[in-house]
Amino acid sequence: MKPNRIKSLWREGKPVLNGWLSIPNAFTAEIMAEQGYDSMTIDLQHGVIDYQASLGMLQALRASEVATLVRVPWLDPAAIMKALDAGAYGVICPMINNRAQAAELVSYVRYPPDGTRSFGPTRARFSAGSDYSAKADENILCLAMIETAEAFEQVEEIVSTPGLDGVYIGPSDLTLGLTGKRYRTGFDREEPEMVSAIQTILAKAHEVGIRAGLHCGTPAYAAKAVSWGFDLVTLPNDVTLLAGAAAASVSDTRKLIA
Amino acid sequence: MKPNRIKSLWREGKPVLNGWLSIPNAFTAEIMAEQGYDSMTIDLQHGVIDYQASLGMLQALRASEVATLVRVPWLDPAAIMKALDAGAYGVICPMINNRAQAAELVSYVRYPPDGTRSFGPTRARFSAGSDYSAKADENILCLAMIETAEAFEQVEEIVSTPGLDGVYIGPSDLTLGLTGKRYRTGFDREEPEMVSAIQTILAKAHEVGIRAGLHCGTPAYAAKAVSWGFDLVTLPNDVTLLAGAAAASVSDTRKLIA
Amino acid sequence: MKPNRIKSLWREGKPVLNGWLSIPNAFTAEIMAEQGYDSMTIDLQHGVIDYQASLGMLQALRASEVATLVRVPWLDPAAIMKALDAGAYGVICPMINNRAQAAELVSYVRYPPDGTRSFGPTRARFSAGSDYSAKADENILCLAMIETAEAFEQVEEIVSTPGLDGVYIGPSDLTLGLTGKRYRTGFDREEPEMVSAIQTILAKAHEVGIRAGLHCGTPAYAAKAVSWGFDLVTLPNDVTLLAGAAAASVSDTRKLIA
Amino acid sequence: MKPNRIKSLWREGKPVLNGWLSIPNAFTAEIMAEQGYDSMTIDLQHGVIDYQASLGMLQALRASEVATLVRVPWLDPAAIMKALDAGAYGVICPMINNRAQAAELVSYVRYPPDGTRSFGPTRARFSAGSDYSAKADENILCLAMIETAEAFEQVEEIVSTPGLDGVYIGPSDLTLGLTGKRYRTGFDREEPEMVSAIQTILAKAHEVGIRAGLHCGTPAYAAKAVSWGFDLVTLPNDVTLLAGAAAASVSDTRKLIA
Amino acid sequence: MKPNRIKSLWREGKPVLNGWLSIPNAFTAEIMAEQGYDSMTIDLQHGVIDYQASLGMLQALRASEVATLVRVPWLDPAAIMKALDAGAYGVICPMINNRAQAAELVSYVRYPPDGTRSFGPTRARFSAGSDYSAKADENILCLAMIETAEAFEQVEEIVSTPGLDGVYIGPSDLTLGLTGKRYRTGFDREEPEMVSAIQTILAKAHEVGIRAGLHCGTPAYAAKAVSWGFDLVTLPNDVTLLAGAAAASVSDTRKLIA
Amino acid sequence: MKPNRIKSLWREGKPVLNGWLSIPNAFTAEIMAEQGYDSMTIDLQHGVIDYQASLGMLQALRASEVATLVRVPWLDPAAIMKALDAGAYGVICPMINNRAQAAELVSYVRYPPDGTRSFGPTRARFSAGSDYSAKADENILCLAMIETAEAFEQVEEIVSTPGLDGVYIGPSDLTLGLTGKRYRTGFDREEPEMVSAIQTILAKAHEVGIRAGLHCGTPAYAAKAVSWGFDLVTLPNDVTLLAGAAAASVSDTRKLIA
Ligand SMILES: [Mg+2]
Ligand SMILES: [Mg+2]
Ligand SMILES: [Mg+2]
Ligand SMILES: [Mg+2]
Ligand SMILES: [Mg+2]
Ligand SMILES: [Mg+2]
Repeated sequence: MKPNRIKSLWREGKPVLNGWLSIPNAFTAEIMAEQGYDSMTIDLQHGVIDYQASLGMLQALRASEVATLVRVPWLDPAAIMKALDAGAYGVICPMINNRAQAAELVSYVRYPPDGTRSFGPTRARFSAGSDYSAKADENILCLAMIETAEAFEQVEEIVSTPGLDGVYIGPSDLTLGLTGKRYRTGFDREEPEMVSAIQTILAKAHEVGIRAGLHCGTPAYAAKAVSWGFDLVTLPNDVTLLAGAAAASVSDTRKLIA
Repeated sequence: MKPNRIKSLWREGKPVLNGWLSIPNAFTAEIMAEQGYDSMTIDLQHGVIDYQASLGMLQALRASEVATLVRVPWLDPAAIMKALDAGAYGVICPMINNRAQAAELVSYVRYPPDGTRSFGPTRARFSAGSDYSAKADENILCLAMIETAEAFEQVEEIVSTPGLDGVYIGPSDLTLGLTGKRYRTGFDREEPEMVSAIQTILAKAHEVGIRAGLHCGTPAYAAKAVSWGFDLVTLPNDVTLLAGAAAASVSDTRKLIA
Repeated sequence: MKPNRIKSLWREGKPVLNGWLSIPNAFTAEIMAEQGYDSMTIDLQHGVIDYQASLGMLQALRASEVATLVRVPWLDPAAIMKALDAGAYGVICPMINNRAQAAELVSYVRYPPDGTRSFGPTRARFSAGSDYSAKADENILCLAMIETAEAFEQVEEIVSTPGLDGVYIGPSDLTLGLTGKRYRTGFDREEPEMVSAIQTILAKAHEVGIRAGLHCGTPAYAAKAVSWGFDLVTLPNDVTLLAGAAAASVSDTRKLIA
Repeated sequence: MKPNRIKSLWREGKPVLNGWLSIPNAFTAEIMAEQGYDSMTIDLQHGVIDYQASLGMLQALRASEVATLVRVPWLDPAAIMKALDAGAYGVICPMINNRAQAAELVSYVRYPPDGTRSFGPTRARFSAGSDYSAKADENILCLAMIETAEAFEQVEEIVSTPGLDGVYIGPSDLTLGLTGKRYRTGFDREEPEMVSAIQTILAKAHEVGIRAGLHCGTPAYAAKAVSWGFDLVTLPNDVTLLAGAAAASVSDTRKLIA
Repeated sequence: MKPNRIKSLWREGKPVLNGWLSIPNAFTAEIMAEQGYDSMTIDLQHGVIDYQASLGMLQALRASEVATLVRVPWLDPAAIMKALDAGAYGVICPMINNRAQAAELVSYVRYPPDGTRSFGPTRARFSAGSDYSAKADENILCLAMIETAEAFEQVEEIVSTPGLDGVYIGPSDLTLGLTGKRYRTGFDREEPEMVSAIQTILAKAHEVGIRAGLHCGTPAYAAKAVSWGFDLVTLPNDVTLLAGAAAASVSDTRKLIA
Repeated sequence: MKPNRIKSLWREGKPVLNGWLSIPNAFTAEIMAEQGYDSMTIDLQHGVIDYQASLGMLQALRASEVATLVRVPWLDPAAIMKALDAGAYGVICPMINNRAQAAELVSYVRYPPDGTRSFGPTRARFSAGSDYSAKADENILCLAMIETAEAFEQVEEIVSTPGLDGVYIGPSDLTLGLTGKRYRTGFDREEPEMVSAIQTILAKAHEVGIRAGLHCGTPAYAAKAVSWGFDLVTLPNDVTLLAGAAAASVSDTRKLIA
């Protein structure tokens, strides 16, 4: 089985720069994969992408060096197992609120007796290697999102779930969950209470020896997160990059011809 | 029929900032269309896009204010007429080499007796308006690309073709056509002979009262082209914008965490 | 945020004529949207449509004046949130049986602290407007279907669920649910017990100040429903319209040439 | 090889009622195919349909009793041969202007030594039958459209082209071609000069023993065409049927609730 | 309603040879359907296929003689009902662990009062017949997979669930479930404990008069399963057949040219 | 630029075993690519595949070691240039009849001043490498099919066309072209006159130092072709392999249970 580059980098003590795909297209996936990211996540939750579109994206990503994760739309065995059978090297599951849900998540990702994943890696056995059935459980990453008030309260219970590789923080939802509509929505929180919440989750994960990732909106915040100790940081997604670059291209031109 | 915004801007004496779509996706089209461009061209030649993908893109672009053009893959009546029936407000046709080809192009874009376009605006009558059949010929733009050695020689014959609305310059191909592999490929030519060739085409077009557009690689060059008198300038395409912004995002982060 | 036309019409005291899309195609959506409906529902339950197909339909509908709803396949947070992130202005959720399910539905549609919707309106922020995150909760409609025996028994509990905007009646399922296979399947019930059931649900909704919609099979029945006080009536869907018109076209011709 | 129903009906002396598909969708094709037509044409010219979409439509049509034709986008060997390899039982080719073009068309439809069709019926050998290579030339229909001024002048030359099975009249284009923009666009011509032109083409075809078809806009006109002797009449297409039925549904309801 | 060929064969006392589709493509479905199978299952669980892809496959299969089943991804009412509305003649549901889940499965497949299936057979009423609503419940097959340790323990409870037509054994998962990672993964178990488990399930099903099917990896094992009394045996899927035949083609050639 | 494996093998004096893809699917492409072929050709002529489907296949093939060719549908600059821009390492063009057509083909494949290929390798610069524009002309293969009577007569003129890398023989068409319908259709000709014709073309190609390929139907014939000196042999395509393996699977089982 082709090794999981995220695990390799972690073993070397390096942080992972993760790209994020929200556009349902294999060519944008291919373009993104050539830009130097360590890993790439296909977002089936908030990305406008469903399973069949993600399949073409996984195929287009296979030739690159990035490790490929899927953020599944929900804690749903069908979605999780289909993503893995299609060749994803791990899943990020949103809105895990407590230990029971975290354990359920783990069970969907691992084959018996460690879990309840159903056997049939129809594409993975071609794309990841013919020894997939023997090696999958040690290579596939299982990451739970901590992003609700309940999850924050239960964080110790969640991070200590056997078989969980790490937690992933969604700062938008976490802010909504902890503070309602008091603050602006979005990533890169600067409110002290939110920074503290984020650092608490990180610390709790590291205490029990699992990894922590953070969704970031800028290189500057991502670098700050790395300095805090995050093992994986997600950089701006394809939609944000494209919209931002196009808007700058137009406004720069308009300024020059004004 | 909803008016052609390019024609409106030209009537007001304003240059058109044109976006360029090479990714076969309706969501990237929608994102691009919200960034301030005046028009948007779907590239069926070098874009990795075919007719059916372009249809979804035309549908996604309809809600925006941009005028929508299609660069067709070749001087081919089927492709040209299908693009127009699908609702495009004009075509850019590559590799027009001489007057005969320019006249052929015009004929495919206009209904008899002005041309030979076959009648059946299946989507256009919904998207552009129910008076499409009466108004199409005055609203649809017909633009011929001047980008080969032969075309450059024949430029006066081409620009004076009755019914042609303008010429569009592809600097990469023009450089290859005029100078072979002597220079780097790409847009934003700085070689004096190429600048001169580009300005010659512009002048010849304006002499006979038609429009001229230029494919540009940066806001700076686009602004320069506007200052030369170009009526339409194309800014960097979706692929370039996405790749550039993603690469910068990664390298900025790597620098910050180094 | 572009306003929700359904809400506007209701504020003006007008009934809403709703179109219904069961064909997985953006062009049929575009055709339907030009025919004078006030709103249009993409049916992900019984329509032969899944998420990715609905995305293209939402894009094609954006240019029209209709408000766009999605009937989700089931009370499923992933499907509901994805439909909203894709730009739908509301959801109709089938088979809501009791207060707990209705509350669950509401929670998926509203952001915290009012609900548990996860944040990430990836397309909606382009299609609905950049102030989407602030305005979504007041613009998005949440409609629960009352169409089972249990729901009919629990109707008072359901209609009084905080945050629910209205109920929507599926007469086929309601008839099956209340009477089993005694009557023909389908809409436009004339059996006194079914008419009474429908009017009871309408009355219970209006008593607590929420809206009620009815799925109808003919203009005549829709008009009758409006006269009963329904706030929204669904007219025959694309499949029925196309099949009916085609059958009539053939049989009319056959009669004329017989 | 499953027989060509059009040929069977003609042998029985019966006119063919032809349906017309302009929506790129297999389900609309399937719906249309159940409504009583004898044959169904997938329109790759003015329909918003390309090859790949037509493949799914051909697959969906296979289960029905209709004979399936493809109107190709242009006199193009690639498009014609791909349509036949995909299982179409004949092609209608637009804009045939003269004998040379008619002969070219025939050559693309027949295998050597009768023509130049390249061998490789990849789907047809499954869908039409394993004896396809032996039987195709006698079952496949080759129909040339007469719809330009030049074609009208050359009609005798065209109809007598060896191997041509029939002509098909596009009244919109023929009107534009013969009279420019003097009259409204569309089908069902009532102008005496156009009726005369249509009847002339019909007569010339029958004189040499080939078939003639007419594109019609209503059952009434189709029936009239049958009474004139047309062998095949096309009834309103899917787009027209759907738009018309939907508009009537809305306006009927609005009248009833006014 | 077109009869269910599986039920017909069973009434004649014949075993059913079932094909299995894991490639998301209508043409591979069409090719497979011509090779002599009695039925064909589209695998939405481990196949790399989602709903929209399965729709095209169902359409392509309609012309053949095979009965068409869908293996749904999970015990999920949305997926099950959508498969049936799309025209499937039955569902195979994975990972049914106990009586409650089996009863839930049955309820999703049958209309009230026998179950809770929601009414709206949008495609089925065209593809299966206009009397679908009256005949569906007697023609649609409901098959539960027995493939976990819990299911094996509860097998008597499961097989006796009212309304269940049969059980289907997934030997890979059953082996993992009963023995963990002790043995190789895959079908065609030869371990005595696994053979015994398989025969036990078969016996329990037959005791209560329902059917049993087995997923097999070779004709030899399938024939053995038939000899044991299995009512339906699944032969190698499209992926396995294609990969195996291609590998043999290359290696045979390499040997010959060595 | 990633090197062209076909050219590498030829430099080492080895024959190339070429796979052939006629199914429009990226997963079948991926499966085929893992079976040991040296190169893989996507057939846009007789395969039921168009441009957009081929794009996903090219993406899926990128991760494998095979060199990827496209058989274009016809001698058409749009199709040829789009295939190359999408990343194909060469084209096979059907039905090249004479020197003029061969020269036209070469011109579409090479950049000026060697040809007339238009510049814009939108995907190729990502998939093949950032030095694509400098290296494409030396890496891309240009192969002309010799498969008509005229081509056979003109073979010396064709093979000596400057810039042509090789010829490729389509035995089905060549047999039809040279002998009409006298013999069965298909590959693996055993008629002495056909064997002689095939060997003549091979000899003429080798005389002028270009390569020759043959489309074969079995490993045995492919091996024979290699022994004759063919530089590339195509093995049975995906459709044939799948149909053959499935038919054998069913008939083997039926025999065993008879
Ligand atoms: Mg979140
Ligand atoms: Mg160019
Ligand atoms: Mg219902
Ligand atoms: Mg016409
Ligand atoms: Mg299983
Ligand atoms: Mg050939």
